[in-house]
Amino acid sequence: MPFPNKTGLKITHLDVKDVRFPTSLGGHGSDALHTDPNYSCAYVTTVTENGKRGFGLTFTCGRGTEIVVLAIRALKRFIIGKNASDIFADFSGFWRTITNDSQMRWIGPEKGVAHLAAAAILNSLWDLWARIENKPVWKLLELVSTIDFRYITDVITKDEAICMLKAKRAGKEERVQFLEENGYPAYTTQVGWMGYSDATVEELCRKYLDLGFTHFKVKVGRSVEDDVRRAGAVRKCIGEDKVLMVDANQAWDVEEAIDWMRQLAHLKPLWIEEPTSPDDVLGHAKIAEALKPYGIGVATGEMCANRVMFKQFLQSGGMQFCQIDSARIGGINEILSVYLMAEKLKEDNLTLKGTGSPSADITMRLNPVAVSKSSKVCPHAGGVGLCEMVQHLQFWDYASLSGTMEGRLVEYVDQQHEHFYDPCVVVNARYMAPKLPGYSTEFLPETLEKFTYPNGSEWKKMIKEGVFPAPDEAELVN
Amino acid sequence: MPFPNKTGLKITHLDVKDVRFPTSLGGHGSDALHTDPNYSCAYVTTVTENGKRGFGLTFTCGRGTEIVVLAIRALKRFIIGKNASDIFADFSGFWRTITNDSQMRWIGPEKGVAHLAAAAILNSLWDLWARIENKPVWKLLELVSTIDFRYITDVITKDEAICMLKAKRAGKEERVQFLEENGYPAYTTQVGWMGYSDATVEELCRKYLDLGFTHFKVKVGRSVEDDVRRAGAVRKCIGEDKVLMVDANQAWDVEEAIDWMRQLAHLKPLWIEEPTSPDDVLGHAKIAEALKPYGIGVATGEMCANRVMFKQFLQSGGMQFCQIDSARIGGINEILSVYLMAEKLKEDNLTLKGTGSPSADITMRLNPVAVSKSSKVCPHAGGVGLCEMVQHLQFWDYASLSGTMEGRLVEYVDQQHEHFYDPCVVVNARYMAPKLPGYSTEFLPETLEKFTYPNGSEWKKMIKEGVFPAPDEAELVN
Repeated sequence: MPFPNKTGLKITHLDVKDVRFPTSLGGHGSDALHTDPNYSCAYVTTVTENGKRGFGLTFTCGRGTEIVVLAIRALKRFIIGKNASDIFADFSGFWRTITNDSQMRWIGPEKGVAHLAAAAILNSLWDLWARIENKPVWKLLELVSTIDFRYITDVITKDEAICMLKAKRAGKEERVQFLEENGYPAYTTQVGWMGYSDATVEELCRKYLDLGFTHFKVKVGRSVEDDVRRAGAVRKCIGEDKVLMVDANQAWDVEEAIDWMRQLAHLKPLWIEEPTSPDDVLGHAKIAEALKPYGIGVATGEMCANRVMFKQFLQSGGMQFCQIDSARIGGINEILSVYLMAEKLKEDNLTLKGTGSPSADITMRLNPVAVSKSSKVCPHAGGVGLCEMVQHLQFWDYASLSGTMEGRLVEYVDQQHEHFYDPCVVVNARYMAPKLPGYSTEFLPETLEKFTYPNGSEWKKMIKEGVFPAPDEAELVN
Repeated sequence: MPFPNKTGLKITHLDVKDVRFPTSLGGHGSDALHTDPNYSCAYVTTVTENGKRGFGLTFTCGRGTEIVVLAIRALKRFIIGKNASDIFADFSGFWRTITNDSQMRWIGPEKGVAHLAAAAILNSLWDLWARIENKPVWKLLELVSTIDFRYITDVITKDEAICMLKAKRAGKEERVQFLEENGYPAYTTQVGWMGYSDATVEELCRKYLDLGFTHFKVKVGRSVEDDVRRAGAVRKCIGEDKVLMVDANQAWDVEEAIDWMRQLAHLKPLWIEEPTSPDDVLGHAKIAEALKPYGIGVATGEMCANRVMFKQFLQSGGMQFCQIDSARIGGINEILSVYLMAEKLKEDNLTLKGTGSPSADITMRLNPVAVSKSSKVCPHAGGVGLCEMVQHLQFWDYASLSGTMEGRLVEYVDQQHEHFYDPCVVVNARYMAPKLPGYSTEFLPETLEKFTYPNGSEWKKMIKEGVFPAPDEAELVN
C-alpha cells in the first residue's frame, strides 16, 4: 500500500465554498438550454492533521450551487476523522460509502446533486494523494483498486482491467516522454457560443486558426436557419480541411434531432453533441444509426449521470465520442471505469462477455450494428476547472491505457484559467503536460476573496450596483 | 380554463419541513441496500392569498432530507407571487420552469435531489388544485395539458394522448362507480422486510392472509440460502394458489441477478423487483429475457429518475411491471406521461412510431422480442405518504386510461398512515376510493409537532436519550 507512514494523515477539516463567476454578463457559455450560466463551482479543501491539503471542485452553473455545497457538508460525516492513507488503501470501499450510504442513497443514487457533491470530495482526495506522492495526478494513476466495479461486471471485471493495463506497460515510458514533449491535441468551443454575434464568431475563428487549432465547435439548436448561417460562417472561415463539430445541448426530441441534423449535414460536422436528453440511451442509438450515412457521429457525456449510463451508451452504439466530465460522475475512481469500458468494448466489441447461458449475448442482439462501433474518449471541458482536471485523465489514458491519440482530443475553452494556481497551458492547440503535484485545481487566494458567493468582494459590488439581484433565502444558507 | 375567478389565488407562502420517523428502530423498511432507513419526507405547504392550502411531500430515507429541503427553498423563487390559476392554466410550462431553470438544470437535470424537490412542490400544487375544485385528485385528472412531452414524442405525442383518453370516455362513469363500490387490489410488502425474524415473517403471513391478501412480496439479495429459506417460508405459508413476488433492491450485477434468480425460480415468483442498478435499462432487458423461460417478470421504477428513463424501460422490454413512484419523478404531470406511454406501447407495441426514414423502427430492432411485451403499471408505495398518493393515480388509470385492473395492483405497507388527516383505507386487500378533496397528503398537526427533525418533541427526546446521535452541521441548516 502506498503509505507506509500514516502519521499525521488524519483528516481534520473539510471546508467547502460556493464560488461563482459572472460569466452570464458576456454570453460566454450560452447555448440552446443554458441561456445565462454563471460558471460556478462548489470548492472543497481537505486538510490533514499534519497540514497537507487537497483541493477539489465540482462545476455548476450558478443558482443551485448552494444545494451542492450543503450536500458536501452532509457528506463530511464520512470523512472527518478518517486517516487519508486508510481511505487510499481501500478507495473503492470509501467510494461506495460516500455514494451509497444506506439512508442518503435514496436522494441519488449516484446522480445529480448527491453525485456532484461526492465528486468534489473525491477530487480533493485525489489532489491530496498526488501532492503527498509529489506527482501530477496523471502520473499517479495505475489504480484499478480504486474502482467500484458494481453494476459493470457484465462489461468489464477487475481482473480484466488489470490485464488490460498490464498489457500496456510496454512502451509507457516512451509515451510519457512524448506527452511531456508534445502535449495532447485540443479543440476549441470558443468560436460558437450561442450568445455571440456573427462578427464575434468570425473574429474568433480567425484568432483560433492563428493559434493553430484544427477543430472548432459551434452551438446549435435554436433555429435551423440560424444554425445554418452561424455554423456555415464557421465552416467558410475554417475551410474544408479543418474539422467542425456541432453541439445542441439537449435541445431536441429524437426525431427532431435526426431531421434537424439532415439540414446541417452539408456542413460536414464530425459529430452532433447532446442531440437530446442525456438520459436517452436508446434515443441516441437511434440518432447515431440515422446519421451514420451522413458520416456524423454522436457525442455525449457531460451530463451522463454515472458509469451505468456510460456503460449503456457504449454498449448501444449511441456514443461515438465519449465525453467524460471530471466533476459530474463520482471522481477519478468512476471515470477510470468509463475509460476502461470504452477501451474494453473497442478491443472486444463483437465478443461481449458471454456466459454460455440463455441470457448471453443479448447485448449484441440489442443492437448488432452499433455494438461493432468503438467510442473515442474526448473529454468535456470548459466551465470552471474542467480543463485543468481532464488533461490529467486524458494524459493517463494515452500513457497507460489506450496508448493512442487517434481520433481523440480534449475540449478547450479559454476561460476561468486565470483563477488557478496551476492553470492548464495550451500551446499550438495542444495541452502541455501538467508538471506540478496534484490535480491542478487549487484556486488563487484572491479568487476566493473576490468570487465566493455571495460575500466575495466582487459579488458584494455587483449586487450593490444592481448588476445581479441579491441572493435569495436558500443561497444565504451556507 | 378552470379558474374564471383568480381573485385571492396568488401564492404568498411556501413552507417546507424536514419530517422523519424513527423506523430504523424496528427494522421496518430494511432491505439489501437500505439497512436502517428512517422513513422521512420533505413536506411542503403552499398557501394562497385567500388562505387556500395545498400539501405535498417527497419521500426520503432520513439522512439527506435536509438537502432536499434546501432544494425546495431554492425553487421558491419560481412560485412565490405567482397566481395559482395561471400555473394551472399553463401547468406544463410551469413544470418546465421549475425542472429546467437555465442555471439549476446542471445539478439535475430531472433527477435526484432537484427532481425530488420539484416533486414535493408539484404535489402540493395538485393538492391545492383539487381542494379548490373540491374533488379528490383521482377525479380531477383529464389533463394532458399539464404534461411536458419533451423527449418522449418518439413514443407518444400530445395529440395521441388526447385521442387515447377520448377513446376511453365511454364507460368511464361505470368504472368510477365500480371503484367507489369495490376499490382497487393491493398487495402487501409487510411480510418480508429483511430485518424481520423468521417468526415475525410467518406471523405476518398468517395475519395478511386473514386480511384477504393474495399477493405477498419478500425482500431478497443478502444471501441465496437465506433467500431460499425466507421466501420459501412465505411460499409454504401462503400456498401455491397465492402469488409471491421478490425484491432485491438493486443488490446485484446483471449476470449475478440471472444466476441468483434461477436459484429462486422453484418458488415461482411473479416478478423480481429491482434486480440491479435502477439506471441499467439494457441490463434489465437482458435479465427479463433470461428469466422469461421461468415465467418471472422484471419490475422496477421506484428509483427510475424520469419519464425518459421510463420510456426506455418500456421500449426495451426491461420492465414487465412498471412501478411508478408518486414522489420521485416530477409530480403528477410527469407520472401521467408514464401511464400514457405504458398504455400506448401496450396498444401499439409492434408499430412503434415509424417515419419512413432510415432511422425508423430501430427501436424494434433493438429488442424485437421484448418490445412485443406490454408493461402493467403497479405503483411503488409504502414509505411516507406514497400509498396515499398512488391510490389516486391508479384509480385515475382505471377510470380514464387503461380501463382495466387485469394484472395490476398497488403496493401496500401498513406504516405511517396514522400521521395523515385522510389516510388510505385498505379493506379486504383493496384500496377504498379516496373521497376527500385533495391528494390525501396533509399531516396531522401533532405529527409535525413530534417528528419535525431535529426539533420535534419526539426527536428531542430520542436524541437526549441517546437513541439517535445529535444532528450534524448540515442537518441543522434549515
